[in-house]
Amino acid sequence: MSTLKNDRLLRALLRQPVDVTPVWMMRQAGRYLPEYRATREKAGSFMDLCRNPELACEVTLQPLERFPLDAAILFSDILTVPDAMGLGLYFAEGEGPHFERPVRSEADVARLPVPDPEQELGYVMDAVRTIRAALAGRVPLIGFSGSPWTLATYMVEGGTSKDFRQVKGMMYDRPELLHRLLDTTARAVTAYLNAQVAAGAQALMVFDTWGGVLSPAAYRAFSLAYMRQIVEGLTREAEGRTVPVILFTKNGGQWLEDMAAAGADALGLDWTTDIGQARARVGDRVALQGNLDPAVLYASPATIEREVGAVLASFGAGSGHVFNLGHGIHPQIDPEHAAAMVEAVHRLSPGFHATSD
Amino acid sequence: MSTLKNDRLLRALLRQPVDVTPVWMMRQAGRYLPEYRATREKAGSFMDLCRNPELACEVTLQPLERFPLDAAILFSDILTVPDAMGLGLYFAEGEGPHFERPVRSEADVARLPVPDPEQELGYVMDAVRTIRAALAGRVPLIGFSGSPWTLATYMVEGGTSKDFRQVKGMMYDRPELLHRLLDTTARAVTAYLNAQVAAGAQALMVFDTWGGVLSPAAYRAFSLAYMRQIVEGLTREAEGRTVPVILFTKNGGQWLEDMAAAGADALGLDWTTDIGQARARVGDRVALQGNLDPAVLYASPATIEREVGAVLASFGAGSGHVFNLGHGIHPQIDPEHAAAMVEAVHRLSPGFHATSD
Repeated sequence: MSTLKNDRLLRALLRQPVDVTPVWMMRQAGRYLPEYRATREKAGSFMDLCRNPELACEVTLQPLERFPLDAAILFSDILTVPDAMGLGLYFAEGEGPHFERPVRSEADVARLPVPDPEQELGYVMDAVRTIRAALAGRVPLIGFSGSPWTLATYMVEGGTSKDFRQVKGMMYDRPELLHRLLDTTARAVTAYLNAQVAAGAQALMVFDTWGGVLSPAAYRAFSLAYMRQIVEGLTREAEGRTVPVILFTKNGGQWLEDMAAAGADALGLDWTTDIGQARARVGDRVALQGNLDPAVLYASPATIEREVGAVLASFGAGSGHVFNLGHGIHPQIDPEHAAAMVEAVHRLSPGFHATSD
Repeated sequence: MSTLKNDRLLRALLRQPVDVTPVWMMRQAGRYLPEYRATREKAGSFMDLCRNPELACEVTLQPLERFPLDAAILFSDILTVPDAMGLGLYFAEGEGPHFERPVRSEADVARLPVPDPEQELGYVMDAVRTIRAALAGRVPLIGFSGSPWTLATYMVEGGTSKDFRQVKGMMYDRPELLHRLLDTTARAVTAYLNAQVAAGAQALMVFDTWGGVLSPAAYRAFSLAYMRQIVEGLTREAEGRTVPVILFTKNGGQWLEDMAAAGADALGLDWTTDIGQARARVGDRVALQGNLDPAVLYASPATIEREVGAVLASFGAGSGHVFNLGHGIHPQIDPEHAAAMVEAVHRLSPGFHATSD
């Protein structure tokens, strides 16, 4: 593999000194970019795009052509794993994801397989290899998965949910059944992420989109415990470098201390937590990634610069910060506003990385 | 007015000794009750029901006929105030609320009136008087309003929103304009709540449904500051008793210390915060209301009892706790499951209110 020319992301995730705060955006390859919409059109459906390694590579690289981002992230979907477990993923037009065969009964859980990533998820591994080759060492490639709890919400509900009636009903009335489902899913995710590393991913992120809908006790037992299980099973070194792992629970700001003890290198933060206070709470145990309100990008470039400066100042001096939005970039954002954010991070952050760092 | 026969709610909100932890449910008069659906059918639209004092009284009392609840809450909508400000509230079938005239420009904000509650909102005051008479001192009546920030999200967006594009765009780019809107709205809410007290409301609650979508700094400046302004302007005594005030920010668990300093008597808690830890954080400054996950009511009565016990035990011994769900009861809940919750609170809580209390 080619030498990595920009390793700021990997260094910051391990709290090693950097010259500039690295920056990328969740959903940076997405609908706000006209060139993404054109490739998506060419591919057919959203899943057709995920399953085509050449086109997945094309959209992964598109934001890097526009903005001087410090990382690429694999273009894929968190539901590839339950789909490979045989649940029959499909997208109804304008409705979000559905599974043909939701997981509800003992028998449903018992028959869930742990897919072989190079077989049932080979298209993802091919995409990782294609992207790594195309990147040619420009920036590191982040691989990812959904968290077991987040995947379980879709697997049990059969799609997106507002009230999580089925999965919470199972959690409260049949906790052992849900634990079996989560254990199988955690083993599947571990194998999936390790295969991504073997294929070339240089950092990993676990997205726990729905952990924040749980009570604190339920979060620890049904979400965080399985993210810890995954972290313990991951390959943490490849190509002679550490492969940093990031955990992100949306609306998880109340549980940062627990999350910091799960063994990952970094935590993602949404915008409802002050990043300076978060840093004081987690100390030197983990790096932090975040945490600009994605809605700031609706504002003017001058306002964007001011708000970027506020996040950088709140984190303060020293390494251990990867700049990002607190959640995915909204589809209606003007790409020029994303450019203003990236530029502001690179222009304003060197002062926080002085010689003493 | 008749003597209050059950004052547990008022006592617990002021952290005075009680024999049993008082309990009520947000949205206790609602779609999960077949008798509510029947009255709603009879009334016509949702707003027709809100505007009819006799029928609003009827649905307010329905849950009290089924369950031994310790409080009634006025049946109304948080959007009555912006409607009275002239924005033209309407409900599109299956779509939620809309305003005909959203507030976007300097001129829109400048022309916003502070409605006279006994005029433009006389139907609400008539409902309060009708309900108080019908309650005949059985339990106290809670009046309520939306918070200025929460109302502003609907006023500026023109309805419900997922991304809060318009109101956050205003907040980041034109903060002074949003501050003027919020100040006018806070004055309207203050007058509205004081009129409810004059009409017979015995406790007040401010619902900040959307404060949790803000960054910490934005929450303090654009939501909490205006709830504090309201609290400072409220009539805090009526009929020789204190009128307790409850502030509730959904997803506000990270900001409890700030909220506890706003001058209210109690804070509402959703289920993402451990209520025992919340109590340790706010100390003796405020009582706490909450915080069972509403999804627990999908589970079996035995599970409901166990989870009620966990919340009571987490709060621990002594007064200062009003039991409630962490958010409104879901429309699909079996009323028997709500009964199981109320019964469990009354059966399990006396042990937490021993002689030493």
